[in-house]
Amino acid sequence: MKLSEETEFEAKYNAWVEYINDSLARVITEKEAPEKSIYEAMKYSLTAGGKRIRPVLSLAVCEMLGGDVMDILPYACAIEMIHTYSLIHDDLPAMDNDDYRRGKPTNHKVYGEARAILAGDGLLTYAFELMTDSILKNVSNNIGDGLEARIRAINFIAKAAGVSGMIGGQVIDIESEGRFIDRELLEYMHKCKTGALIKASVMVPAIIMKLDKNDMDCLERYSENIGLAFQVKDDILDVEGNLELLGKQTGKDASRRKSTFVTLYGICEAKIKLENLIYDGIAALEKFGDKAGFLKSLAFYIGKRKN
Amino acid sequence: MKLSEETEFEAKYNAWVEYINDSLARVITEKEAPEKSIYEAMKYSLTAGGKRIRPVLSLAVCEMLGGDVMDILPYACAIEMIHTYSLIHDDLPAMDNDDYRRGKPTNHKVYGEARAILAGDGLLTYAFELMTDSILKNVSNNIGDGLEARIRAINFIAKAAGVSGMIGGQVIDIESEGRFIDRELLEYMHKCKTGALIKASVMVPAIIMKLDKNDMDCLERYSENIGLAFQVKDDILDVEGNLELLGKQTGKDASRRKSTFVTLYGICEAKIKLENLIYDGIAALEKFGDKAGFLKSLAFYIGKRKN
Repeated sequence: MKLSEETEFEAKYNAWVEYINDSLARVITEKEAPEKSIYEAMKYSLTAGGKRIRPVLSLAVCEMLGGDVMDILPYACAIEMIHTYSLIHDDLPAMDNDDYRRGKPTNHKVYGEARAILAGDGLLTYAFELMTDSILKNVSNNIGDGLEARIRAINFIAKAAGVSGMIGGQVIDIESEGRFIDRELLEYMHKCKTGALIKASVMVPAIIMKLDKNDMDCLERYSENIGLAFQVKDDILDVEGNLELLGKQTGKDASRRKSTFVTLYGICEAKIKLENLIYDGIAALEKFGDKAGFLKSLAFYIGKRKN
Repeated sequence: MKLSEETEFEAKYNAWVEYINDSLARVITEKEAPEKSIYEAMKYSLTAGGKRIRPVLSLAVCEMLGGDVMDILPYACAIEMIHTYSLIHDDLPAMDNDDYRRGKPTNHKVYGEARAILAGDGLLTYAFELMTDSILKNVSNNIGDGLEARIRAINFIAKAAGVSGMIGGQVIDIESEGRFIDRELLEYMHKCKTGALIKASVMVPAIIMKLDKNDMDCLERYSENIGLAFQVKDDILDVEGNLELLGKQTGKDASRRKSTFVTLYGICEAKIKLENLIYDGIAALEKFGDKAGFLKSLAFYIGKRKN
C-alpha cells in the first residue's frame, strides 16, 4: 500500500467507525426505569470503543456491491453487539478473569458479575430484536424473497454466534487451556471462535443482496482468510504488542500455557502464515477489481494493526 | 373442575409434555466434535424435565385456534430453550447460587461455571437459529405475509426475553434483594421476569395465525393473568411447598429477605389474589367457548400445582 492509499484508507475506516459508533450509541437508550442499570451496563461495553472491524466489514462489502448501507446497518450493529456480549462473558472471573478491556475496567469490574452476565445476555438478545425490528419497520419496501434473504441473514448470524461457531470455539479454548493442542485443532478453534463472526460480517450483505454463488464463494474465501489472519495477528500481538496501544495485558497466552499460532509455529513462521493469509484474502477479491480497494486495504490493516 | 375433567386435562397435558420432551431431545444432537461438552451441557438442562408450561401453552393455543401444531413447534421449543438458558444463568454462583434445579444438580455444578455460562449463551442463540431454520425449511409453503408474521413472532419473543422483558425483570430482582419493594414494583418485576415469556408463549401462535385484534386482546388478558398467577403461586410454594415435590429448596425467599407476594400481601391475601387472577384469566377466554377448555383447565392447574 502506498502512503497516500494508506492515508485514504485510514480516513475512510475512521469515518465508518464514527458512523458505527454513532449508531451503536443510539441503539441503546438508557431508560428511567427500575431496570435502568442493565441499560447502563450494556451501553458501557457497547460504547467502549474497539476497532469495529466486523461492522466496518459489513458496510464496506455492502458499498462495494453497490448496496444501501442503511439497509445493512442493523445487521452490522447486531454483529457488533454479539461480539461485545461475547467479550463481557469471556472476561468474567469464571472464564478469562480479565480486569481490563480496551483500556477500561471490564464490565463485571464496574457493574458486578451478576449484572455483567445479564448485560451480555441482554446484548445477545437485543441483537435479534434489532434485526427483526428493522425488517418489520421496512416491511412495506421488502416484498417476497427480500424477506427470505433477511431471515437467511439472521440465520447465518445465529449459526456463526452459536455452538457451531463462536461459542463452540470458546468451549474448545477453555478446554485446551494448559493442554497441548495440534495445529489442526488450533485452526479449527479459531475458525469458530473469531472466524465465524468475521465471516458473517462479510457474508450478511452478500446474502441480503442475493449475490450469485461465484461471488459468494469469493467473499467467503476473503472472509475466511482475513478471519484467521486476525487471530494469528492477535497471537503475535500477545507476544510483541504494546500494553498501552493494546489496552490489555500482553503475555497472557504464555502465562495461561495456551497453544497459539506463535507457540505452535514459532514467531517467524507465524508471521509468514499471517502474510500468506492476507495475500490469499486479497487475491480472492480480484474479480471485484478497483471496487474492492478498501477491503483489500483492510486485509493489510489486519496484518499491521497495533491493537 | 370435575374429577373426570381433571383426569382428561392431566392426560392431555402429559401427552403434550411427552411430545415436547421428544422434540427437545431431538433438537440438540450431541456431536463427536471437539466442542462436544457444550452440547452435553445444553442437553443436560434442556432435558432435565420441568413442567414445560410455556411450550404446552403455545401448542394448546395453536390447537384451540385450529392451527397446525407442527408449525408452532419450533417456536414452542425455542421459548423453552430461552427459559432453560435463563434458569442456567440464574442458578450461577454470581446470581442465585443454587445447587439444585428440578431435583438435579444445577448446570454449573456438573459442568463448571464457564461451561454453564456458555451453555446458557448457546441455548439462547440456538433458539433463534431454530426458529429461522424452520422458516427457511418451509419457505416454499409460506409466501408473502406468512413470512412477515413469523418475523413478528421472533421479534415478540426477542422482546419478551430481553431487557424490556425477562432480563429486565431479573435485574430488578437482583437489585431488590434485601430491600423493601412496593406492590407496584413487585408486580412490574414479575410481569417482566416470568410474565413476558409466558405471554409470548400464548401470543406467538396468535401472531403467526394472524388473529384479529379482538381475539388477540383476549389472549393477551389470559396470558397476563395466568403469568402473574404463576408467580404468586411460586411465592406461595416457597413458603408452603414440599421440597421433594418441588425439586428445589423452600424458604429461599425468606432467607434472602426477598419481597414476594406472600411477604407483601400475607399468605391469605396472596391466595385470594391467585384465585382472582385465575378467574380473570379464564374469563378472558369466554368468547372461544368450549374450544378453550384445555386452556381454562391449565389456568386452574397453575393454581393447584405442587411444583
